[in-house]
Amino acid sequence: MATQVFKKQKTIELRKKHIGPSCKVFFGHDPIKIVRARGQYMYNEKDEQYLDCINNVAHVGHSHPDVVRAGAKQMELLNTNSRFLHDNLVQYAQRLQATLPEKLSVCYFVNSGSEANDLALRLAWQYTGHRDIITLDNAYHGHVSSLIDISPYKFHQLAHPQQSQHVHVAPSPDIYRGKYREDHPDPATAYADDVKDIIEKAHAKGHKIAVFIAESLQSCGGQVIPPVGYFQKVAQHVREAGGLFIADEVQVGFGRVGSHFWAFQLQGEDFVPDIVTMGKPIGNGHPISCVVTTREVAEGFMSSGMEYFNTFGGNPVSCAIGLAVLDVIEKEALQSNALRVGGYLTDLLEKLKQKHPLIGDIRGRGLFVGVELVKNRIERTPATDEAQTVIYRLKDQRILLSADGPHRNVLKFKPPMCFTTEDADLAVDKIDQILTDLEKASDLSMPADKDPETIPSKRKETLKENGHEIHSNGPTDIHSITKTNKRRRT
Amino acid sequence: MATQVFKKQKTIELRKKHIGPSCKVFFGHDPIKIVRARGQYMYNEKDEQYLDCINNVAHVGHSHPDVVRAGAKQMELLNTNSRFLHDNLVQYAQRLQATLPEKLSVCYFVNSGSEANDLALRLAWQYTGHRDIITLDNAYHGHVSSLIDISPYKFHQLAHPQQSQHVHVAPSPDIYRGKYREDHPDPATAYADDVKDIIEKAHAKGHKIAVFIAESLQSCGGQVIPPVGYFQKVAQHVREAGGLFIADEVQVGFGRVGSHFWAFQLQGEDFVPDIVTMGKPIGNGHPISCVVTTREVAEGFMSSGMEYFNTFGGNPVSCAIGLAVLDVIEKEALQSNALRVGGYLTDLLEKLKQKHPLIGDIRGRGLFVGVELVKNRIERTPATDEAQTVIYRLKDQRILLSADGPHRNVLKFKPPMCFTTEDADLAVDKIDQILTDLEKASDLSMPADKDPETIPSKRKETLKENGHEIHSNGPTDIHSITKTNKRRRT
Repeated sequence: MATQVFKKQKTIELRKKHIGPSCKVFFGHDPIKIVRARGQYMYNEKDEQYLDCINNVAHVGHSHPDVVRAGAKQMELLNTNSRFLHDNLVQYAQRLQATLPEKLSVCYFVNSGSEANDLALRLAWQYTGHRDIITLDNAYHGHVSSLIDISPYKFHQLAHPQQSQHVHVAPSPDIYRGKYREDHPDPATAYADDVKDIIEKAHAKGHKIAVFIAESLQSCGGQVIPPVGYFQKVAQHVREAGGLFIADEVQVGFGRVGSHFWAFQLQGEDFVPDIVTMGKPIGNGHPISCVVTTREVAEGFMSSGMEYFNTFGGNPVSCAIGLAVLDVIEKEALQSNALRVGGYLTDLLEKLKQKHPLIGDIRGRGLFVGVELVKNRIERTPATDEAQTVIYRLKDQRILLSADGPHRNVLKFKPPMCFTTEDADLAVDKIDQILTDLEKASDLSMPADKDPETIPSKRKETLKENGHEIHSNGPTDIHSITKTNKRRRT
Repeated sequence: MATQVFKKQKTIELRKKHIGPSCKVFFGHDPIKIVRARGQYMYNEKDEQYLDCINNVAHVGHSHPDVVRAGAKQMELLNTNSRFLHDNLVQYAQRLQATLPEKLSVCYFVNSGSEANDLALRLAWQYTGHRDIITLDNAYHGHVSSLIDISPYKFHQLAHPQQSQHVHVAPSPDIYRGKYREDHPDPATAYADDVKDIIEKAHAKGHKIAVFIAESLQSCGGQVIPPVGYFQKVAQHVREAGGLFIADEVQVGFGRVGSHFWAFQLQGEDFVPDIVTMGKPIGNGHPISCVVTTREVAEGFMSSGMEYFNTFGGNPVSCAIGLAVLDVIEKEALQSNALRVGGYLTDLLEKLKQKHPLIGDIRGRGLFVGVELVKNRIERTPATDEAQTVIYRLKDQRILLSADGPHRNVLKFKPPMCFTTEDADLAVDKIDQILTDLEKASDLSMPADKDPETIPSKRKETLKENGHEIHSNGPTDIHSITKTNKRRRT
């Protein structure tokens, strides 16, 4: 057991004294002090174990020995900047490139998802010569000032949000709660047409579109899975306007969706972004991130004449750690684990949905799963307080889950990728008990049979593939995705 | 000797293929491949040793075993985000605070100097409700888009620089090459009055000043040491306009100036910035940085209602490493080493100046030293090509030095803090030889006695202090600084 320097109360006091009050802790009225962690488990100062369903950064598991070893070994040898040649840098770039469509071949290594997204904007501005940005409603792309501007998730928190005239917010392609829902004949086209409208309006004002940016799956925005074909259609509109498409994979990349290494690949093989940004899981907690783009965009960026230098970005230690993370994903087959356990988890949750009126929607790909709680399935009234109660009661039972989305009513699963079916059983069992209690207390019961929401969703279908039955949480083959994975009307 | 994965030529080819072409290597036509480093020495793939005079990031020496051990030990235990309580975070904040004036008590941990300066701007914008920024000419504050806007060092590289209407560039307080020089009766007031003028002009246009930002000593801008009293006067003008003062210590903090832990302290005890940003040396190469401000500014930032969350910022590993760096600075008395060796180096260079007409100015504090090369001492014509020749020939002799400043004619010393007098001897000896060759080739000789520049500078004075003679490169006592350290007319 790791020792403490201060008693918990002293840690809290010092934190109040010396850490910016805008930096929040989880469970503010009774925060958790974690002293060690391993795999999908975290341990508090009393050595009590928590099941971690939320730390997507500890991608291959907390404190993975292979990653620790690689980092420590390289730290002993050398940690310097990328103005010196080093094999780790080029080897890592080569390895990352191998996971991506061939045209995405040029890397810039940085220290955080925020630095990555900011650089992606700079690339787009320079390459296109345009200024305007289209972002999605409820999006979060990072904490530096340029990204707060394009993160409605953040700027909506302000008492007096000031939206830049160069930023345009398109509707989030959320077919459960958004503008076009699962009963729309073609939500992908409808949402993409809204982007087209934005472009036309911007043009009418003399503005020019530099870029459309979206997470491949919206995370903080409420675990939103855009309908298949949406990105292709948006990319077409944006490129016609001379702009680029940035796929933000900071939260959802590196095999989490199970069927593919990158979440944008869920949209089909015919979709390739101009820029991909990656972060959180890339270094299993070590500060490293990356922007990958095409040769053409990279050459355009260079043509400005301005050098790009990032002091820590792509240093030998960061790259050694990044390489080790890729190795572990392969060695431990964590991508297929995400597919298998994610499918299992989604099935368990779908069963809960049949039992609990508080569950409005279950959506997920691999180990990226959202459970949207509603007070009323017809009105889809967000059950924000109930979601809070669920995560607080889970915490009391030492299970870490969070609630997010614009109404903070979506339970978010994004655990380390070594999450097991037993972990899924435990978490879902506890959620079942808590929802039962909540529904009992508020006298909620399942609606009558006629409620269309009780009809099992098409997403529940299973399909035969590669000789065995898998769950439609995500097929393993890109071709089948374009045919089957579009979220259909129930 | 560390092994290579690729032969050097292959590394170069892969780098060309996979790394953004805007990311430059040192010595582009024949870059250096470094495979290991220790202390102030780096080793290439043939195990040839280079003396490192430039890596201020490897602050306590490359691959310092105490720092490596602290990082590895914490990585094994836990590396997670700051939404969980952890002792390393609060302990590190407490330790940093102890090095600063008491009112600078609230920390925000981030991953890079760029993230730190961007956050500092966000703090200032939110606290003041104002928008405009005053920056210094030739300043460099980071690579994210908000900082390119305030970094003339960067935006002057653009073919068509577009300066934001909210950014105002004040003259760099460079008393060698700037607007007011060493022959001016009061350059501190004169430069500060220029800032006052800028404020008045901004007000006349209805603009409001949020912040003045400056490196405590300009680094990329040409190793510029502002005259004592300048910051106090600027702070007064800026605060009267409702703005804040950011001291950027990213390059120059953590004891490098020898006489003090922070370079802004060279201005005297009566000067306290509202925000201090720190970076590069803080983690000896590990990506960690910090913004420190007052309780008042921190509360103002929180009043926006927006949470500040930084995924990697202040994680237990980063803080463990930060703590180890502070321990090594103390244990090995590196701040006093910087004072002693920096003074010794400056003296050697002053002697060279008496011999070499190519040397126009020597200026330094501790192990932050600049040697400005000029073709002509009267005209002070920048000897840009000669500076390039010096650093290339030094490289051939395995000494790493760089040339910077707006004319790239200032040789920059900012070595790891374990730099020794023997290292200084070696570097200066080689510079001596190279300058001799250069002057011979171009038939340059020392000007006649009447050249005012040949008169030994007041900076050369030594003073008795604490019972022994020290060089005025930096007295150890804050009070004496205000009296003696102002750069006087020669």
